[in-house]
Amino acid sequence: MPTAHGTMDHLRVKAHYSGYLLITDLPSRLSFAQLCSELRNMCSLAPQRPLTLKWIDDEGDPCTVSSQLEWDEAFRIHMRSKRTGLQLHVFPSSPERPGLACPGEDRDYIMAEGLDQIRDRVRLELDRTVDFWLRFSHDTEYGGFFTCLDKDGQVYDDTKYVWLQGRQVWMYSRLYRTVPRFHTEQILEAAKAGGAFLRDHSRVRGSCGSWKCAFSLSRDGRALKVQRSIFSECFYIMGLDELSRVTRDRRDQLEAEQMMQQLLHWVLTDPSGLGRPQLPGDRPTSSLAVPMMVLCLVHQLTETREGAEAEEGTGGRGPEPEGEPMTQGRYRTVAEWCVQQIQMHVQRGGTAVLENVSEDGEELPGCAGRLLNPGHALEAGWFLLQQFSSRGPSELRDSVVSRFIEGPFLRGWDQEHGGLFYFLDVDGHCPTQLEWSMKLWWPHCEALVAFLMAFTQTRRPELLQRFTQIYDYTFKHFPDTRTGEWVGYLSREGNVALDFKGGPFKGFFHVPRCLLMCETMLDQILDQKQGPDQILDQD
Amino acid sequence: MPTAHGTMDHLRVKAHYSGYLLITDLPSRLSFAQLCSELRNMCSLAPQRPLTLKWIDDEGDPCTVSSQLEWDEAFRIHMRSKRTGLQLHVFPSSPERPGLACPGEDRDYIMAEGLDQIRDRVRLELDRTVDFWLRFSHDTEYGGFFTCLDKDGQVYDDTKYVWLQGRQVWMYSRLYRTVPRFHTEQILEAAKAGGAFLRDHSRVRGSCGSWKCAFSLSRDGRALKVQRSIFSECFYIMGLDELSRVTRDRRDQLEAEQMMQQLLHWVLTDPSGLGRPQLPGDRPTSSLAVPMMVLCLVHQLTETREGAEAEEGTGGRGPEPEGEPMTQGRYRTVAEWCVQQIQMHVQRGGTAVLENVSEDGEELPGCAGRLLNPGHALEAGWFLLQQFSSRGPSELRDSVVSRFIEGPFLRGWDQEHGGLFYFLDVDGHCPTQLEWSMKLWWPHCEALVAFLMAFTQTRRPELLQRFTQIYDYTFKHFPDTRTGEWVGYLSREGNVALDFKGGPFKGFFHVPRCLLMCETMLDQILDQKQGPDQILDQD
Repeated sequence: MPTAHGTMDHLRVKAHYSGYLLITDLPSRLSFAQLCSELRNMCSLAPQRPLTLKWIDDEGDPCTVSSQLEWDEAFRIHMRSKRTGLQLHVFPSSPERPGLACPGEDRDYIMAEGLDQIRDRVRLELDRTVDFWLRFSHDTEYGGFFTCLDKDGQVYDDTKYVWLQGRQVWMYSRLYRTVPRFHTEQILEAAKAGGAFLRDHSRVRGSCGSWKCAFSLSRDGRALKVQRSIFSECFYIMGLDELSRVTRDRRDQLEAEQMMQQLLHWVLTDPSGLGRPQLPGDRPTSSLAVPMMVLCLVHQLTETREGAEAEEGTGGRGPEPEGEPMTQGRYRTVAEWCVQQIQMHVQRGGTAVLENVSEDGEELPGCAGRLLNPGHALEAGWFLLQQFSSRGPSELRDSVVSRFIEGPFLRGWDQEHGGLFYFLDVDGHCPTQLEWSMKLWWPHCEALVAFLMAFTQTRRPELLQRFTQIYDYTFKHFPDTRTGEWVGYLSREGNVALDFKGGPFKGFFHVPRCLLMCETMLDQILDQKQGPDQILDQD
Repeated sequence: MPTAHGTMDHLRVKAHYSGYLLITDLPSRLSFAQLCSELRNMCSLAPQRPLTLKWIDDEGDPCTVSSQLEWDEAFRIHMRSKRTGLQLHVFPSSPERPGLACPGEDRDYIMAEGLDQIRDRVRLELDRTVDFWLRFSHDTEYGGFFTCLDKDGQVYDDTKYVWLQGRQVWMYSRLYRTVPRFHTEQILEAAKAGGAFLRDHSRVRGSCGSWKCAFSLSRDGRALKVQRSIFSECFYIMGLDELSRVTRDRRDQLEAEQMMQQLLHWVLTDPSGLGRPQLPGDRPTSSLAVPMMVLCLVHQLTETREGAEAEEGTGGRGPEPEGEPMTQGRYRTVAEWCVQQIQMHVQRGGTAVLENVSEDGEELPGCAGRLLNPGHALEAGWFLLQQFSSRGPSELRDSVVSRFIEGPFLRGWDQEHGGLFYFLDVDGHCPTQLEWSMKLWWPHCEALVAFLMAFTQTRRPELLQRFTQIYDYTFKHFPDTRTGEWVGYLSREGNVALDFKGGPFKGFFHVPRCLLMCETMLDQILDQKQGPDQILDQD
């Protein structure tokens, strides 16, 4: 008869080892020597390595098991309890003196016990963030979203930034589409109203007769500024495409695809429509942001549409047969170009992701050539992990984790005050950006997503360790538990330098996207831990 | 027979009163009662006001003089000394108890005794700064100046910024032309070499067939970036015009004047040549920087040329007679327009200088409309004082001091950590500029010049007080006494945030211009104090 702790014949053991959770059923009449042997086997521990076992008793305290007598006692007490599985912590070391902790022991318990608390906090923050923007950001008179919201949510400027309009439409639509508790009429209406404003007001006539999106609009939607870059268009596309997946409005989908064609023309064929003059000193440059954003858009546009698989086909299923719709093949080629372009930014023998390189992948001279943007590199890292998740050999994935996630984190983390620097110089010069040493919210969001995704794909415990390190800093410094949402800009020392919740570059995007993705990934990890599925089943 | 302290019949008295230095010759056999009466008269002190006199003895200590006996003793000791004039401090108050200091007494001695030390330090800093740029910034291979110089003077980027090239040419030329110790072959050659690079490489063909200046150039002078504003042209004009005054090269003068015509066309008639697209939401805006810079250029271009007065005439001598060269009349009209435009930025009943207002002088909505830039306001203040120095009623001058100098200082000074904020919001919102709370070198340079100039024009002691307050902060935080030059960017708390000496926006300009102007003004003040000329001669 199966019981909570196993069957009469078997004992379910949940062995925590170096950040892993190893779950297995062992014969219940196992001797201590056999237990040790089983555990060494599970943990791939050589016979000569020391081994310390601790089990967690009814009160949650760790008790050393080092003899048959202690093991019998542990087994007896455990069988009395209602616990699912006997919690064992396995350390490949001995304490310095009996009674002391093993190296890394504290950390191991934190990891085992804290993830569900982190998940709960992440979920709460997401709810509070969504609530903040629903309450304060909607312009019910002219449509669209106010994003310049002060610490209390009050509007301090009514300019509408197309980046942030598009991102908010995307975020509402994504929440509505993928999270049951956000599948509400209120969120749907907000997404649709934002989409209408975006579609009606963003486009302006560019040079050479092409269309561009404005960078900023007056409250009533008249263009104020146009940038000579592709980013307004990126978020216009993201927003309308995601919205069209919710509303099934084919026009929004086509509008997004049409703007994507235009954008790809600028990026791949001829940038003159962006309006930048050609200058004699121009050195064609690859800026990391461009292939990153294009890859993100390709993911967005090629995601399987509900009920449309048969009609359109999806990416990620190997070479395209002749005759399939042009767009899928085209997008796959574009994605490959993006990956190649992003990889080109890895320099210095794989130890640095440079923000700008030449078009042929050489280092550029001067500050621009030496610029590091750890937040960007980390974001590129998880974009690449998404790209490789269902294809490609694991070496590719490991290389991404090492080069785009662990490397930039180590370079970017402030050893003195904690937190990620905004900019650095690869040779250690002082960056010329005045804000280089500030701690911004979004690199921390990207780091949380990147390390958690890297952990879910590799199960390397030190990646989860890093995630909790970043989590600790981020959740200590950024969230405002009074009014909700996060502040965005801290001084190097971690004091609030700008106290507003939204501004020209901070809207409803990085925080909720990060929280949504982390909640989803933590749910998966915790389900695997606590449910019947096992992370690494040794049976 | 005149002696150092007066004649046998007369005693030279140097009376320090509320920041003023009042110098007069009094009959040497004056009674104490007569002395008090003379001093009350000099200081416009009503008979009923208390009066405390202290003279400074041989050792520099203040000794109270409150009776005929004490006055005889002071006179006797003074006549023995080699001092020029008997130093008396006059306080319109009594000490709380005998032996205590009068209110403001400490400050008064500091003011009287410290200015020459400040002048010496300013002079030393100027020498060190000039030396730094002479040593590290010259590109002997391609010409022009490196400006990205790290804390030790090493080049960390060889991009050449036209703003900074023009400014350095101006500064070398101005030093050569106006300061005897810098009238050296080395500085002349540096100015000429910089001018040649500037003239040969800055111009690029703009839109609509007009010419523009690039913003940045490669080391060998190929244009890298062009801004859609007038500032590269401003410093191009400043540099070439000042150089032409040194070299008497008529071509540079004409080149500067020609570019000025172009610039005035953009500013006053048609901005389309700057390349900014016209957008539906555009609201014509007056940005303080534009009339400020144009006024600065008018000063530059209309300054009397050596040996050329008769030929060209100068501004500032009343209405232009018919038939004089067109340019002088044109420039006078432009200067009046600038003054009117700058004054338009005074809002909120005279209490705030807003960085941006509408073209008709109304406040603009949003962050841009509420932006304060204290450094700019202070700089505009001394530009206006220069403009009014030789014309206009004193009320105009007093209004400038109050609105553009004292007001912005009071708003801009960080009461907690000292130093001037970079940006503020007039309504107390948090600015959206990430660097708003940083302490930059140049606003402090402008504040030093503004307060010292305001003092020299008004002789109000509290302006000299402010000058020393800003001096204390500035000279404590910015200069690097090891390698020379100043760091430019501090955190709000006053720590060095960026440690380089030169960068894309920091060159050989604000520091030496400030030091040169302060040295000159301090020399004048101190000469008036110590020399035979009297600040306020009561005779």
